[in-house]
Amino acid sequence: MDQYPEQLSGIFQALADPTRRAVLGRLGKGPASISELAQPFDMALPSFMKHIHFLEDSGWIQTRKEGRVRTCAIRKKPFAAVEAWLSAQRALWEGRTDRLDQFVTAGQKRKQSE
Amino acid sequence: MDQYPEQLSGIFQALADPTRRAVLGRLGKGPASISELAQPFDMALPSFMKHIHFLEDSGWIQTRKEGRVRTCAIRKKPFAAVEAWLSAQRALWEGRTDRLDQFVTAGQKRKQSE
Repeated sequence: MDQYPEQLSGIFQALADPTRRAVLGRLGKGPASISELAQPFDMALPSFMKHIHFLEDSGWIQTRKEGRVRTCAIRKKPFAAVEAWLSAQRALWEGRTDRLDQFVTAGQKRKQSE
Repeated sequence: MDQYPEQLSGIFQALADPTRRAVLGRLGKGPASISELAQPFDMALPSFMKHIHFLEDSGWIQTRKEGRVRTCAIRKKPFAAVEAWLSAQRALWEGRTDRLDQFVTAGQKRKQSE
């Protein structure tokens, strides 16, 4: 389930920030330049670039420079990694819903009797 | 897509650590006590408890104390939040695969001509 723990940590870490999620949301619609991507954020360019580098290092985006313009595009592989992790968890989960129901029900009964 | 940015950041942050993912993997099979959960890790209990508190604060697990034993169980809501984020991204993605193909193909052509 956790075959590439380091990559997976970076993939999830990249998603743990609203700016980076918003950048991925924008890139989901198609490639964009750094200045287009930075425009909606009230943030100094060096701070914004840290997010871009984080997304690139964790594998979420690829960038390409033509002349003075760097263009970013989203990559598909991290989605597959997140989906694989979710599917593996779901497979475990679905096998034992009854046991969780027992845990929750027991907790509620305990609270009621307190 | 990003309706609860703070919760979503915590949900993804929780997954950005192999110990926390392993704990969720174990809890996917059913509830377990802290000592059962800690057993596979070569880690001092206070360090391990930080991971448990992180999972609890971010909404991934619930815990219940009976006597001297604290039992943990996984919660379903964060899965739904991650799945909703993935679905929203996928919806954007699927609408523009052609444009990404153009981006990648143009990059390959550029490299070949260099």
